[in-house]
Amino acid sequence: MTGRLYGLGLGPGDPELLTLKAARLLAAVPVIAYPHAEGGDSLARRIAAPHLPGGQIEIPIGLCMTTARRPAQDAYDAAAAAMTAHLAAGRDVAALCEGDPFFYSSFMYLFERLAARFPVEIVPGVSSLGAAAALARRPLAARNDGFAVVPAPLADAAIARRLEGAEGFAILKLGRHFARVKALLATLGLAEHCTYVENATMPGGRALPLAETGDEAPYFSLILGYRGTEPALRLRSRQAELSA
Amino acid sequence: MTGRLYGLGLGPGDPELLTLKAARLLAAVPVIAYPHAEGGDSLARRIAAPHLPGGQIEIPIGLCMTTARRPAQDAYDAAAAAMTAHLAAGRDVAALCEGDPFFYSSFMYLFERLAARFPVEIVPGVSSLGAAAALARRPLAARNDGFAVVPAPLADAAIARRLEGAEGFAILKLGRHFARVKALLATLGLAEHCTYVENATMPGGRALPLAETGDEAPYFSLILGYRGTEPALRLRSRQAELSA
Repeated sequence: MTGRLYGLGLGPGDPELLTLKAARLLAAVPVIAYPHAEGGDSLARRIAAPHLPGGQIEIPIGLCMTTARRPAQDAYDAAAAAMTAHLAAGRDVAALCEGDPFFYSSFMYLFERLAARFPVEIVPGVSSLGAAAALARRPLAARNDGFAVVPAPLADAAIARRLEGAEGFAILKLGRHFARVKALLATLGLAEHCTYVENATMPGGRALPLAETGDEAPYFSLILGYRGTEPALRLRSRQAELSA
Repeated sequence: MTGRLYGLGLGPGDPELLTLKAARLLAAVPVIAYPHAEGGDSLARRIAAPHLPGGQIEIPIGLCMTTARRPAQDAYDAAAAAMTAHLAAGRDVAALCEGDPFFYSSFMYLFERLAARFPVEIVPGVSSLGAAAALARRPLAARNDGFAVVPAPLADAAIARRLEGAEGFAILKLGRHFARVKALLATLGLAEHCTYVENATMPGGRALPLAETGDEAPYFSLILGYRGTEPALRLRSRQAELSA
């Protein structure tokens, strides 16, 4: 009997936005693994902390803050090997994931290494998108609107192409791309109704109109926008585009 | 002192996918409101039930299963009036929402009627998308991929336009549009890697390749797809499209 791998979504940061299922599993699994910035903290470990019974085996996945892919892949190789030993010995292992394990999460790197060999269960979590919308007090999408999620590291033309056709949109992973993306949204005529959100549900979290921001954004930040008027302010539906 | 309106996300159906915060608020608020199909059940009320203390005031929002907009708007007008009376009298009111309150939720109709007059707090929840991805065991989006959410009631050309540029996608609200959308995905060359998911996290929930489905789909169903190979099977990143 091998152990089971859990991809455990922990939500966007607020310890109260953990699910009942995640809390139950954190109290029960003998082994946890989590991303850990070198010389820094682990947000996932911090969200999970109040629910850990103590005495569990821990596998920190040391990630250096580089954009080079090879060191990160080496870290996932090493973590997957350590997790494999526990799973093969019959111990359940929970991989702790900020947000949702299958929505822009590094859990994918463990999943692709381990899913073919061990039983896997994914526990979905509240995503940073839902948290940002809640803080900004604006719906992401409604009725028959389309919604697009676009990572900021893409080049301008690639971002513009992915925004075409969507009514609601979110642009993630702003960081050093913030000023460029802001300028692009202005060029596309989409900047006016955008809201900037940083550190949603965490201490210091805030939401403000994009026009009132400076040129810098932290890693945990995103832009929410709507083509035209956002749905809560718009009472008519787009009947013309509906199928008969 | 007026009461506070909570937009309370309850997650996708599994009672364990409720957040700790939603559970705490359900035990504390004196008034709850929830959508209720005429002659039927309320999924939101059912998810919340284990956490209700008993004795709370309940405002069922009676929705008849029609696509006509006017009767639904009348029901929201009546519910908003009932909620206003409680809020004005200083009682907190929780609007129960399946999934997340700001992601294709009918909560928006209450929000647009009440947000200007009372303090509002949105409690995000696990969305049906995360639940579907977990059941299907496939990532929604990863790395620098774009992700598109598209409602099936749109006409073919409108759906196709919203899928352009996205790597990952989800098509919601299938119902009577299922056979048409399936044919469209085949025409667009996107059907091969699609997964069909129905009733994710609920009893009878299942995920299967789109090619193995019939021509009927229930209301709580969606299609998950990826343009090309899904991320867990694809080891190279799309470096060419990244900003310098």
